[in-house]
Amino acid sequence: MVPPAFILVAPQMGENIGAAARVMANFGLTDLRLVAPRDGWPNPAAETLSAGALPDVVTATVFGTVEQAIADCALVLATTARPRGMEKPVLRTAEAVERLQSTPSRSGILFGAERAGLPNEAVALADAILSFPVSPRFASLNLAQAVALVAFAIAEADASGPPPTFEGVGAPAPREELVGMMEHFEAELHRAGFFYPDAKRVPMTQNLRNAFTRAGWTSQEVSTFRGAIKALALGRGKARVRRDADDAD
Amino acid sequence: MVPPAFILVAPQMGENIGAAARVMANFGLTDLRLVAPRDGWPNPAAETLSAGALPDVVTATVFGTVEQAIADCALVLATTARPRGMEKPVLRTAEAVERLQSTPSRSGILFGAERAGLPNEAVALADAILSFPVSPRFASLNLAQAVALVAFAIAEADASGPPPTFEGVGAPAPREELVGMMEHFEAELHRAGFFYPDAKRVPMTQNLRNAFTRAGWTSQEVSTFRGAIKALALGRGKARVRRDADDAD
Repeated sequence: MVPPAFILVAPQMGENIGAAARVMANFGLTDLRLVAPRDGWPNPAAETLSAGALPDVVTATVFGTVEQAIADCALVLATTARPRGMEKPVLRTAEAVERLQSTPSRSGILFGAERAGLPNEAVALADAILSFPVSPRFASLNLAQAVALVAFAIAEADASGPPPTFEGVGAPAPREELVGMMEHFEAELHRAGFFYPDAKRVPMTQNLRNAFTRAGWTSQEVSTFRGAIKALALGRGKARVRRDADDAD
Repeated sequence: MVPPAFILVAPQMGENIGAAARVMANFGLTDLRLVAPRDGWPNPAAETLSAGALPDVVTATVFGTVEQAIADCALVLATTARPRGMEKPVLRTAEAVERLQSTPSRSGILFGAERAGLPNEAVALADAILSFPVSPRFASLNLAQAVALVAFAIAEADASGPPPTFEGVGAPAPREELVGMMEHFEAELHRAGFFYPDAKRVPMTQNLRNAFTRAGWTSQEVSTFRGAIKALALGRGKARVRRDADDAD
């Protein structure tokens, strides 16, 4: 997908513009457009809140009208939480992202100002309305938060497979190692009198084996746990020696 | 799904706490937990930025430790953009929301502080890491934005119907029980000299906590394992008595 333009219509607070730019940069989006920003441009508060996204990572371009700002867009979506009574499809985020993905050229997403939201004239220029599942009793999303949700949804749809910077959990240990660990544990528990009376042995062993098997431990974790069993089984003596030494002090 | 608790660990700026509360209210979430907020609580800046969410729509509860804040949680997710080198599953938002939906009791989602993110000790207490597809070159999400993404993803999933829940394995134990078990185990291992030299304590404890947390044990399994620890810790004496008796025969 061609990365969409994020178009803020008559934004008021520089802080919100900056926070919007920051979260766009978080999700690899760079085309920010400002229609008639109240306090002019550039805006020091916007740069501060952008945490380094402005002016270099995200490019902000100022336009006089919505029409100019969307001139190169083949698809335009309008974000709003309010019913409009307009003959216009209302999309959930997932559907909206599908529309963006299937548009071969530039798309634009309109965001309204802090108080007023998008004016009807701007909504009228959009192909569809993008609506968030907000609580009807607390529906007013912060501007930068609305930008965050759309940027995130686009990046989620673009990302396929696990995040490259993370290592997943290692493979579970070969079953032989797991069984060895469980047998070691059971042997020590037997020596400690855990399976008394003897009728408890089978159900208790089964419970423990179910729990350990489901845990999916790696070879390293199995090995650490065997060390822990050994310490508990043998360490008691050490502790006593140490306590005796303490007593002698 | 039981609405998850959103847990901010050592948050610094009241503004971010307020913005987080606001977007929680936007998506119908009300259980905000603060672990050791830097500037104390209540916080006037938080109330201002919450746009009316605090103190009445969203309830903020202050805790001293992460362990206390997650005590009643059966599933704990840690949000972080940073690789950790921990043996812990890394989930995309959609998978994370499925896990939340299939957990029949309370879940908690951990969010780190503005600069430092989540400390490793907090991540070690989580079942899985929730990772956003951020740009590697601009990875630092604003705290309230991270909260917004999760709140939104939960509301989106709720709006589109839950996936079927898993059957067969019981629900994971409340986190309080799991933490109690791990602390019990660690205390006995300490007495047995397992954490020697002392520099081993932190990495060993983290490895064990990761392994136990990932295991997803039920209350019954946690209880059985505590019995086993107790037997190993106390049983040595019994075994010796028995062996002494054998010797006397």
